[in-house]
Amino acid sequence: MRSVTREDLLWIATGAAVLGSGGGGNPYRGRLIAENLMEGRPPVQLVRLEELPDDALCVEVGNIGAPVIGMERIPRGDEAYQALRALERHLGRRATHLIPPEVGGSNSLAPIVVAALAGLPVVDTDGMGRAFPEMQQTTFMIGGAAWSPAALCDYRHTVALLDEVPSPRDLERLARAITVAMGGAAGFACAPMSGSEVKRWGIPGTMSLARRIGRSIERARSCGEDAVRAASLASGASTLFVGKVEDVERRLTGGFARGRLRLASPSGELELLFQNENLLARCGERVVASTPDLICLLDERGEPVTTEVVRYGLRVSVIGIPAPAALRSPQALEVVGPAAFGYPVSYTPLPGMYGGP
Amino acid sequence: MRSVTREDLLWIATGAAVLGSGGGGNPYRGRLIAENLMEGRPPVQLVRLEELPDDALCVEVGNIGAPVIGMERIPRGDEAYQALRALERHLGRRATHLIPPEVGGSNSLAPIVVAALAGLPVVDTDGMGRAFPEMQQTTFMIGGAAWSPAALCDYRHTVALLDEVPSPRDLERLARAITVAMGGAAGFACAPMSGSEVKRWGIPGTMSLARRIGRSIERARSCGEDAVRAASLASGASTLFVGKVEDVERRLTGGFARGRLRLASPSGELELLFQNENLLARCGERVVASTPDLICLLDERGEPVTTEVVRYGLRVSVIGIPAPAALRSPQALEVVGPAAFGYPVSYTPLPGMYGGP
Repeated sequence: MRSVTREDLLWIATGAAVLGSGGGGNPYRGRLIAENLMEGRPPVQLVRLEELPDDALCVEVGNIGAPVIGMERIPRGDEAYQALRALERHLGRRATHLIPPEVGGSNSLAPIVVAALAGLPVVDTDGMGRAFPEMQQTTFMIGGAAWSPAALCDYRHTVALLDEVPSPRDLERLARAITVAMGGAAGFACAPMSGSEVKRWGIPGTMSLARRIGRSIERARSCGEDAVRAASLASGASTLFVGKVEDVERRLTGGFARGRLRLASPSGELELLFQNENLLARCGERVVASTPDLICLLDERGEPVTTEVVRYGLRVSVIGIPAPAALRSPQALEVVGPAAFGYPVSYTPLPGMYGGP
Repeated sequence: MRSVTREDLLWIATGAAVLGSGGGGNPYRGRLIAENLMEGRPPVQLVRLEELPDDALCVEVGNIGAPVIGMERIPRGDEAYQALRALERHLGRRATHLIPPEVGGSNSLAPIVVAALAGLPVVDTDGMGRAFPEMQQTTFMIGGAAWSPAALCDYRHTVALLDEVPSPRDLERLARAITVAMGGAAGFACAPMSGSEVKRWGIPGTMSLARRIGRSIERARSCGEDAVRAASLASGASTLFVGKVEDVERRLTGGFARGRLRLASPSGELELLFQNENLLARCGERVVASTPDLICLLDERGEPVTTEVVRYGLRVSVIGIPAPAALRSPQALEVVGPAAFGYPVSYTPLPGMYGGP
């Protein structure tokens, strides 16, 4: 177990934004909210997966909604905490540990904020090893651990509770409809699980990994070294493309920011398709990388560029990180592979291993 | 207090479909479901408004969704009962009395079914004196009595609970989004109120009124008398138009069945605009009747024709019933007047009094 310091928040936000694959929320905004809400509170404890008691009551907490919404209407920051409290009242039990559903620039900080407000530890794990647009796309739900009940809370502290939800996909459908009706963004708490379930399905050490990647980037930057290279080394990424953003097409539909980017360099073009997260990189008809592998844009300072802020004219490196093994199984690919997002291509894994060289 | 017999169910369904103004669900389907679920259970007690104890815990129960949905996918019938149970668990208290939110062919039977399943009495009142498409359009919510918390339950018994909802309009928005995500139809329980609040805001005797209207129609029909005339006499209606349905335009949008009818007779044409319920009758630019006044179609046998079954070629009488006084106040007209539905006309009350001559 270790404490999360203020410095860690910056590193986690930056590193998680790399692993967020373009999604997972804006790291800068997420960090400002976290620092503000955590001011004066005791530091949050980060528990390793193997330290988690089997009988712990673990709850996934985070934010749901299209990242673009959060750029226009700043959240209060305690939405997910209020959702946790509503879920606990509904369960008639208190959570003992908080689980990050995904890794992302602001969504990795969200469980830390809830932990600070609730005085609970966060487990050094998550259910994606990256960010994905939909709730059912976690290793916990793919594995068949709990998904329901779930609570959502908006910026006005309106609470919606869902129970007896037949499947993770139904949870996503209902929660998404509620989120859209709540104005496009909400905090959530869901999927109460035992410690042993989390140990079975969680991807280990992803909060620490995000922190390491973020620290490498910040250190390289402060030493005047190549921060893109530092990010790649720390995450085990390979460079897929270097070029300029020539075109951005982005629309908010069904609660998601969907769109495509066109990147150009003297040596060719790359097209990136996204749905909150970057999901497919292709050069003409040739697939360069695809979900569940991680596709991330970094600017020249090594700063991850998420899909809600990417814009015409940016010079970026596109890096690819192999997905965690748990996302590469046939069962997982049905939920997070290219076909699950409607892309008629089969998954060709990037070489290498998740989490670094 | 009196018991609701099997015969009453038929009369209430028919009479409530007249008062339902084209909405409130299909009376025939509603009656079949009610008879099936109530088989072998003790009769439901109907409590007069003045008999209601001040400290009663009253809950609105009913069905939400576009009536067309229920014609294609038959509800289980116990959705609203399950919603009531979920709401009670959330409140930590049991309801003592059930309140019909509206009068309608199947929606007047829904609270009776819940009452039979829960062993609770129904109060002889409602919050509309007719049917309206939206949840916030009740005299209870217009008056400022409770709206939240609310529970929704679908045919798979998935439960959604809403709490701390800022306004009745927000309740409608959230509940509608959830209903659409649940497949377009759900049972609900909401707006826990005290007996004194219900006495203050409820429209008195509307269940009995529906029963009287239905009985008049059935009796006239069985004696070979003019059932349309009997319906009009029992409800205080005047005939607005008699003719044939020449055109039906109906689409399911945003969880509502919206559309328009064109009726023709040798002496002229009438256009009817509806949104689940008939809301505006006009002859060219001249408004013949408008919400909140009741506009109802009856076929030649005096059978009310609801908006989900009206079709080309039907010969119908269009009758108008003056709205209850509580819906005609400036405060109420803001929520249920023509402008609230986007019709740029001012409300011109039909002459006469709600509830008969």
